Amino acid sequence: MSQAATDSPVLKAIFDRRSVRHFIEAPVEKELLMEALKAASWAPSGLNNQPWRFGVIRDPELKARLGGLTRYTNVLKSASVLVAFFLDRDSSYDYVKDCQAIGASIENFLLAVHAQDLGAVWIGEILKNKDEVQRILELPERLDLMAIVAVGHPAHRSQSSHRRPVEELILFDR
Amino acid sequence: MSQAATDSPVLKAIFDRRSVRHFIEAPVEKELLMEALKAASWAPSGLNNQPWRFGVIRDPELKARLGGLTRYTNVLKSASVLVAFFLDRDSSYDYVKDCQAIGASIENFLLAVHAQDLGAVWIGEILKNKDEVQRILELPERLDLMAIVAVGHPAHRSQSSHRRPVEELILFDR
Repeated sequence: MSQAATDSPVLKAIFDRRSVRHFIEAPVEKELLMEALKAASWAPSGLNNQPWRFGVIRDPELKARLGGLTRYTNVLKSASVLVAFFLDRDSSYDYVKDCQAIGASIENFLLAVHAQDLGAVWIGEILKNKDEVQRILELPERLDLMAIVAVGHPAHRSQSSHRRPVEELILFDR
Repeated sequence: MSQAATDSPVLKAIFDRRSVRHFIEAPVEKELLMEALKAASWAPSGLNNQPWRFGVIRDPELKARLGGLTRYTNVLKSASVLVAFFLDRDSSYDYVKDCQAIGASIENFLLAVHAQDLGAVWIGEILKNKDEVQRILELPERLDLMAIVAVGHPAHRSQSSHRRPVEELILFDR
């Protein structure tokens, strides 16, 4: 009845995806980006409230200004495109659940990027300057910046990563 | 260079996954559950802090007691297994980012479940009784309940779902 895990391209993508911080100069094709954003929009959310909103940034000057607000300056400048993820407060009903839903949305986006042979990195560190981002992008108060994801064609995919063994994370089995 | 989106099993899984609330009586195989939990553990998190912890519940009496704390009583009782997702406050560094990371972890779990021909539903509504869940499971204060996911072999997979067109969610493209 069930497919062997090792045969599953979905599990393989989940285990193989890595943060990509070095990109070649090639632009990200519009249709690939749209497919990844569509994947982001198909995350689950409480009451299906779909609280996520997206901003797409390709303008080099704007990327450089945002890059100045994070220690990952060169990642933001060298990525072909930045996607800003927002929580729309007008669609919010529970802040914790909405943040979780947006995390699910970002993960869908990252997996879709990976599945299309692109690379991306989730940058949360820029939230320390979220008011400044808001100002630069001239955004209304109702939009709450949740993350910026930098996307491009990867220069390489070699890096390793690590996770704690899952057995250590299971607190009980009753 | 890039794979056509329609050929991607990863995108297909993201678009085809549905909340499953009706299950047949067959137990969920341990190795499939472990693979889905491993997928959950491979989510990205800020500083790779991996704040997620998992509790596995198969005991019928315990499922029934938890079922009494949500309007989805029968879903919890009829699922072969419940997985409680917790934020470990001892691993937390930023509550918003940790909630997002756990959302990403739950989405990985749901996709892995789907990829293995199982079904699941993310139940956030039980958080209204989170103190009571904590008491029933006799859990320490440092564990913050984030969601319960009910898992089983689906009775059917027919239901439709809907999302807003992605074009409506893109606030700007610069």
